[in-house]
Amino acid sequence: METGRVEAFSDGVFAIAVTLLILAVGIDRAPHGDLGTYLVDLWPAYLAYAVSFLTIGIMWVNHHLLFDNFARVDRPMLLLNILLLMLIAFVPFPTRIAAEFARSEVDRRNAALLYGLTMTTTAILFFALWMYGSRRLLRADADPRVVSGITRSYLPGTPLYATATLLAFASSIASLVMFAAIALFYALSAALFGRTDATVARTASSADTS
Amino acid sequence: METGRVEAFSDGVFAIAVTLLILAVGIDRAPHGDLGTYLVDLWPAYLAYAVSFLTIGIMWVNHHLLFDNFARVDRPMLLLNILLLMLIAFVPFPTRIAAEFARSEVDRRNAALLYGLTMTTTAILFFALWMYGSRRLLRADADPRVVSGITRSYLPGTPLYATATLLAFASSIASLVMFAAIALFYALSAALFGRTDATVARTASSADTS
Amino acid sequence: METGRVEAFSDGVFAIAVTLLILAVGIDRAPHGDLGTYLVDLWPAYLAYAVSFLTIGIMWVNHHLLFDNFARVDRPMLLLNILLLMLIAFVPFPTRIAAEFARSEVDRRNAALLYGLTMTTTAILFFALWMYGSRRLLRADADPRVVSGITRSYLPGTPLYATATLLAFASSIASLVMFAAIALFYALSAALFGRTDATVARTASSADTS
Amino acid sequence: METGRVEAFSDGVFAIAVTLLILAVGIDRAPHGDLGTYLVDLWPAYLAYAVSFLTIGIMWVNHHLLFDNFARVDRPMLLLNILLLMLIAFVPFPTRIAAEFARSEVDRRNAALLYGLTMTTTAILFFALWMYGSRRLLRADADPRVVSGITRSYLPGTPLYATATLLAFASSIASLVMFAAIALFYALSAALFGRTDATVARTASSADTS
Repeated sequence: METGRVEAFSDGVFAIAVTLLILAVGIDRAPHGDLGTYLVDLWPAYLAYAVSFLTIGIMWVNHHLLFDNFARVDRPMLLLNILLLMLIAFVPFPTRIAAEFARSEVDRRNAALLYGLTMTTTAILFFALWMYGSRRLLRADADPRVVSGITRSYLPGTPLYATATLLAFASSIASLVMFAAIALFYALSAALFGRTDATVARTASSADTS
Repeated sequence: METGRVEAFSDGVFAIAVTLLILAVGIDRAPHGDLGTYLVDLWPAYLAYAVSFLTIGIMWVNHHLLFDNFARVDRPMLLLNILLLMLIAFVPFPTRIAAEFARSEVDRRNAALLYGLTMTTTAILFFALWMYGSRRLLRADADPRVVSGITRSYLPGTPLYATATLLAFASSIASLVMFAAIALFYALSAALFGRTDATVARTASSADTS
Repeated sequence: METGRVEAFSDGVFAIAVTLLILAVGIDRAPHGDLGTYLVDLWPAYLAYAVSFLTIGIMWVNHHLLFDNFARVDRPMLLLNILLLMLIAFVPFPTRIAAEFARSEVDRRNAALLYGLTMTTTAILFFALWMYGSRRLLRADADPRVVSGITRSYLPGTPLYATATLLAFASSIASLVMFAAIALFYALSAALFGRTDATVARTASSADTS
Repeated sequence: METGRVEAFSDGVFAIAVTLLILAVGIDRAPHGDLGTYLVDLWPAYLAYAVSFLTIGIMWVNHHLLFDNFARVDRPMLLLNILLLMLIAFVPFPTRIAAEFARSEVDRRNAALLYGLTMTTTAILFFALWMYGSRRLLRADADPRVVSGITRSYLPGTPLYATATLLAFASSIASLVMFAAIALFYALSAALFGRTDATVARTASSADTS
């Protein structure tokens, strides 16, 4: 199967998942009490919406970056991709839980754990998809430096999300702030320093040599 | 009408149906009681989400496989395809019912029957679409072995789903487990042994000769 | 602007509107009472889902048929198309109202009026879009017989839907049955006799000569 | 990255956001009281649905107009575009709030402020995206008159929406009417006088010379 068709279907799931995040601000709830106060008190929901939107948006960009290096798609890759989309389409749920349960410490921790588990699994699947694809499905003309750059740039993803998840046991606020920081870091580094991969790869290799 | 346009529209419905499965984990419900317990108790919903996501995902792959063999699309095929999409877009509903009513035996049985009826009808429509298309709309260069391989691989679909549905009268748990097993079997056989069709066709023909 | 881009966006709206029809069977409601009885009593909702799905599905086919005859899209056409999509995306609402209020006569009548008003306006917009496009945006190589065939086939649409709507004042059941019959007639005539337009046009011209 | 891929993903978000506006008419609420009265009393919701649909529809047209002038898309543009889509996908929320809280003056004012803030931010992001893109990513063969025409036509957007927003402090009705008028003005001027930009640019330049 050509990569174009798989990307088109994946684009659809990314676009719908990102738009369904509006459920996280409670578009289906009847507001209660004074409307002004209600809307202002929704700030954790707006924040959760923005962080998850940014996160899925960056994942969409990365998804294309990966597939651009593949010559074709085989059956195991199709399955890996469906599993990845299963996680992406799941994100609105932990986002909403995090948005609505950012008040008591114990609820916040559980919400952060659910969010973190989802993101960590997504990062693992992204890494698995790239590891499989870069070994079996690479285009003949794929640039080896780009390929190894992407590999190194994907290494910190899983540990970063796993750390933010485990942080919830110490402080749920710190955990949630770290999720936002990861999204912001990826977005800004991508926008300001050119290619995320290149940037992160550079950081990783300087760490290797130190 | 070209097959490309029909596939693009179908891709849209598949992608949206699969993303709306998030309703099955109750994204629109206000959680109650302790959040941790609430989230853990949702495990049947997570399972239902995963099984239906996998099932629709594999159906999307198969949909392309079928249309790749068609030269064009005529009016009866358009109608058959709309009916098939009507069933695909319906799947989130029985999935949610199965997710939320997996507690008492009688509710579980009714949920399994609804789920099974939906899946059996979908399998019948898939088979009808292929039977019609493979007789009237085949590409001149379609490989006869691929065509007969697909035909044989589609034969067990309807009986398998019908059996899982009827199983609900004996045990609803067994029925639901069988739905999950069918999805898993198709996903793994497709991923591990190359083309599903080929694999299933081989099983079918060895059964023929025995 | 090319027609391809407009068609892709329109396809998206058609695909999402059709998939959101699942709201009409109450996917977001918590079932109450005995699940088996609840699911069986939903039959008007299943019917409403099927009728609207079929109707939007056929409209999607016709939308492509029209745009296939256009060389390009200008600004008035863009506005007409946005207005048409506004109606298409609205259909899930009257469908749900019709699905849930098919019990008392007065509620049924109001539901039928809302559904009928939506469908009649949609038919008018379809006709306006075609009248405008066929006069200003036709491809140089458009077949005049196809063009006049489509024109004649679109003439009965608005009166048919208007009649079904007004019928609600006499009998809401008759009105709802007529909506279903229109959808079924278009679907079957399209599937069995080739091109809807041709069929309907033939009927229309034989009526002209009688 | 090619502009085509970014436009396809953006089209998806536009199409889904516009279709989710159906939530603004309360498709997920159980109607109460007499159905006829309930449906008639929904008129502010129908109006809000139409205004937001028209507004997002026109933004979709403009989005293509902008990207048609770009040769390619770089990382900062990807981020700007994701932020823009974040606002577009948010529109169904303020639309619903405006639709359901159009009764008391204080609620209406807060609803108008939320709606206005969303629209003003969207206008700013549209302007930023164009300013960045027209300086860094222009196609070699982009028509300088078209480019400066678009620039001038985008100047009034932010002040117009900001004015309508601030108007809410004087009168919420006037504010809401102005949002509808802006949408209608853009739609009609685009449809009747050819290119919006050209029209608005002409108005803007005649204002410059006066």
